[in-house]
Parts: sequence; C-alpha cells; structure tokens
Amino acid sequence: MALTVVGSIAFDSVRTPFGERERMLGGSAVHFALAASFFTDVLIVGPVGDDFGAEHLAVLSAHGIATDDIEHVARGKTFFWRGHYEHDMNFAHTDETQLNVFAEFEPKLSRRSRESQMLFLGNIQPELQRDVRRQSSASFAALDSMNLWIETTRESLIVAIGEIECLMLNDAELRMLTEQPNLVHAARATMELGPEVVVAKRGEYGAVLFTDDGSFAIPGLLLEDVRDPTGAGDSFAGGFLGYLDAVRIAGGHDDRALRQAMAYGSVMASFNVEDFGTERVSSLTEAEIADRLSAFKRLTHFEEAPIVR
Amino acid sequence: MALTVVGSIAFDSVRTPFGERERMLGGSAVHFALAASFFTDVLIVGPVGDDFGAEHLAVLSAHGIATDDIEHVARGKTFFWRGHYEHDMNFAHTDETQLNVFAEFEPKLSRRSRESQMLFLGNIQPELQRDVRRQSSASFAALDSMNLWIETTRESLIVAIGEIECLMLNDAELRMLTEQPNLVHAARATMELGPEVVVAKRGEYGAVLFTDDGSFAIPGLLLEDVRDPTGAGDSFAGGFLGYLDAVRIAGGHDDRALRQAMAYGSVMASFNVEDFGTERVSSLTEAEIADRLSAFKRLTHFEEAPIVR
Repeated sequence: MALTVVGSIAFDSVRTPFGERERMLGGSAVHFALAASFFTDVLIVGPVGDDFGAEHLAVLSAHGIATDDIEHVARGKTFFWRGHYEHDMNFAHTDETQLNVFAEFEPKLSRRSRESQMLFLGNIQPELQRDVRRQSSASFAALDSMNLWIETTRESLIVAIGEIECLMLNDAELRMLTEQPNLVHAARATMELGPEVVVAKRGEYGAVLFTDDGSFAIPGLLLEDVRDPTGAGDSFAGGFLGYLDAVRIAGGHDDRALRQAMAYGSVMASFNVEDFGTERVSSLTEAEIADRLSAFKRLTHFEEAPIVR
Repeated sequence: MALTVVGSIAFDSVRTPFGERERMLGGSAVHFALAASFFTDVLIVGPVGDDFGAEHLAVLSAHGIATDDIEHVARGKTFFWRGHYEHDMNFAHTDETQLNVFAEFEPKLSRRSRESQMLFLGNIQPELQRDVRRQSSASFAALDSMNLWIETTRESLIVAIGEIECLMLNDAELRMLTEQPNLVHAARATMELGPEVVVAKRGEYGAVLFTDDGSFAIPGLLLEDVRDPTGAGDSFAGGFLGYLDAVRIAGGHDDRALRQAMAYGSVMASFNVEDFGTERVSSLTEAEIADRLSAFKRLTHFEEAPIVR
C-alpha cells in the first residue's frame, strides 16, 4: 500500500504566545507526510528551490518518505509563509506569503506516485488539485482546501470536489462552501457534490466524520501545552489517511476503520501542536502514539446505562 | 433520593432565526427541574408573581416536581427575560431583563428541600447561592454562574465556589474566572478553589468533565434542527445531576457514573434546543431519552486498534 501527497513544501516563520521560529521546515505536504509515515509508505510531490537543502530532505527520508518526486527548481526559492497566533490559537494571522516556486508549479507525478492506492491533495489551487487527480489512479483521493479558494475559485473547487472521494475541511469552511449554517446540512450538501466521506475539522473541539452510514464525532485531546497549531489539520489528515491506507480500506465503507482513523488523526494533530513546526512529530515514537491513543480512548469512553429510579 | 434546585422561574420572550415566542415558561430552575424529573425526585425553589398561573404550575406538577417551595409574592411580577439569537446560536443577545420578584428574593427552604441529598444552585447572585447552600444539608451541591457575576461580584462568587462540590460553567467563563487561557489549567485552578468536580460546557461542541481521576470529553449531539438554545445549559445540568442522584452517587468519586451522567446531560440539552422554551422537554418520553442515549453512544464510540504495517 502507498499514499501519495501533493501540496506545499515550505519554510514557515511563526510567532505564538509561546515563542517564535524562523524558516522552519513546513507546508501542508510536509506535515501530512510526516504524520502518515508512522502508518504507511508515503510519497511526497511538490516543488522546492535552491534554499531547500540536504538537511531538509533528510527529515523526510529519515521517516522513510519517498522524496524522488520533490521537484528542485534551479534558481528558485521555496514557498515561504510568515504568520502569528494570538492567545486564541484557533485562528492564524498571515503576515506574509511568498509563492516562489509554487507560482509556476506544474505537478508531474512519477509512475510510482500515480499508482498509489491513496492520494491526498493538500491545500493548493483547485486547478492544480484537479491536474494531480487526473494523473493519479488512486481509488481513494482526499482533498483539503481553505476559505481563500472558496471565495476566489469557487467553481473550480466544486468541480475538484466532485472528482474526489473524501473532503476534509474546517466546519466553518464547510458551512461557507455550502451556505448551510447547520453542520449536518452542510455535510449532506457536500456529499451531494460527490465525496462519500466528509470530515469536518473543528480545531481544539475535535472533528466529525460523515458517511452514508451516519456520523461520528470526537472531541479534541485536552492539551496543557499548545505551542504552535500550524499544520494541525494536515497532521490530522496524515494520521487519518495513513491509517486507512495501512488497513487497506480504499473506500468509505468500513465504518469501524474510519472511526479508528479519525482517532489516529486526532492523536497526530495533538502531537503536532505541542511544539513548533515539525519538531514534535519528527521525533515521535510509535509507542508514544499508542499511549496517546489509549489516553484518547479513556478521555472519550462512556458506557450506556439505563435510567434507574 | 431527592434533588433540590434553586434558581429563576421566569417568563421568556425569545426570537431566533426559526421563529419567536412571547412569555414562555422558562428560567434556570424550570429548565433544570424538567430535565432532572426524568431521573429523580425534584423540588423547585424560587419566587413567582401574580402572573404565574395554575397552568404554569401544572407543567411542573405533571412531571412530579414538588412545587411547595415556589414562593408566590402577592402583587409581584414574575422574572422576565427577552432575548434573541442570530444565525450563530451559540450566543444569546439580551434585550430586556426585569428582575421583578427576584429583586427582593430571600430563599427560605422547607425542611424537605433542605434535606435533599443533592442541590443545584442555578445562575443567580452568588450571595443568594451561598444563603441557600448554608440552609441545605446536601452532600453534593453544584453551582452555575455567568460572566456577569464573574465581572461584578467576583469575590463573592469565589467564596460561593469554595462551598460547593461541583462547578458547571461555560469553557469561556472558566477561563475568565481563573484568567487561564488553557482549559486544563483553568479547570485545575478552579478545583483549587474547592470543587472536586468541574464541568466545562462548550455549547454545540459538547462538554468536558474534570475530577481528580482525570478528564472526560464528549462532543455535542449533531442536531439538524436547533430552534432555541435557551436553557440548554440548565437542561444539561438537570440530566447530569438527576442521573447522579438516581444512582445515589453523592460525590465525585464514581468515574463511571459521572461519565454516564455527562452523556445524559448532553442528551437532555439536545432535546431542549430542538424547540422553543420547554416545549420539547415537557412532552418528552423516557423511550425517546433512551433512544437518543444509544444514538449518542453510536456517534462517539470507537475501538482502539494498533498500528499495522
């Protein structure tokens, strides 16, 4: 089994109430790939510039991520994002975005990347996502997006959503996309566009899964130290799709596995936010993941008991 | 077993995107008592005026709620609240508040009300809550409050919190009370004030329970039709304490029962918001409650599964 991810490979400069970092390795594809690498074989696709060095590649390779489809653009500069968070860390403030090599990016998937069973289309322009989807023979493709594309390229995004199996958006974005204030109605309207699986991400409040079988909701892990939320959604997606790929569920029809995948997504997102950039996830062990999954089960488990009078 | 509630008995005029109602039966004690009445014997304490008629008492009596401690103030008028909700129904806008008989209220609990094992202090002035707590011999008292009292009577509120076993606040209120932006830190700081149980209510996102044993988090039920959120927090408290009283857990030390109580609280809150005022809860059946508890278990259940590669 294998999982291909296309998205940004970036340098992020981030300031939060708990510190700041300059030009950390980041980007949707990087956060996704690192999280997914604990579960399955991952292939990463995206452009970088001359400033992307061997030490950055090494972070990915050390996790067994195939980097052959990272396209090195000579004389280019890697995508750059600068942002900060106030005390309410559910909301990122963007201070600067340099598309750099991403402005001219034309995805070209190698044969191996095309043949992965699963595909994750990180948050990039919908037309690029469609281009990649056409090249891929994945039986299960998931797509992330953002308010920017809903506002500026709505029609393309809706076509792109019609060509994938799983949509992963923030709950507010799902409401915006469908113009439905109620989340259940928004998810149903989204499924009518094509996807058989819809995941509504809710930041610190967790996430909700919608399929034809019904819905599944989980709170977020309760964390005492949240230092940098950048990449939490991509880490969630990496845990979610990585687990699904590992158990060879290339469709939305195994309710049990989808629920377990949601739990792993939450676990990976919870690690991501505990430190800056990729610092926590890149040094994570499988035992830590297993421990946190158990903690998450304890956090959310209750037994049904009848009314007694 | 019995459960005494002290709080507002009110008429509410409410407008939401889904309709409006004039002078409905409402108030924290009423919403709480109706929800709790499905689980245990409830005694309601609070003042009403001449405008409170037999038909209003009958709504309570029909659910077996003891109304002997409802104090009828001659020539007085019942507490009145007018408010509205925009499309984001997590936030109530208050348009008018008439304290009326509540302005002069001096709680006097009958012997039976004093002797209940459990006590719920609905959202009223902290000094009134303290007065009631002194009269009661309950081994387990829970208290609700709001931003108004945190801002205007902070010291009294902190003393009141030191005299009860369980604090139930919105997560934003817990953060405001303790000046801790992180919910786990806020809950811990609250427990240092006295309570052994802290419940953080999160509106549509559910609720979190904190005890010495650890924490338990649940999402909200996913509802397609939310017509009026007024009283949701009190209905939650009614289901939570009503269930705890029924299983004779007069303390915070039965983790299993506390989790079940949280689930029943969520279920009762979910019914409350589906229609205006007390309309949905007052016509509810025990079978509907059991069905929704099962649905809630299905909504939130997942099995722990190992990483497989």
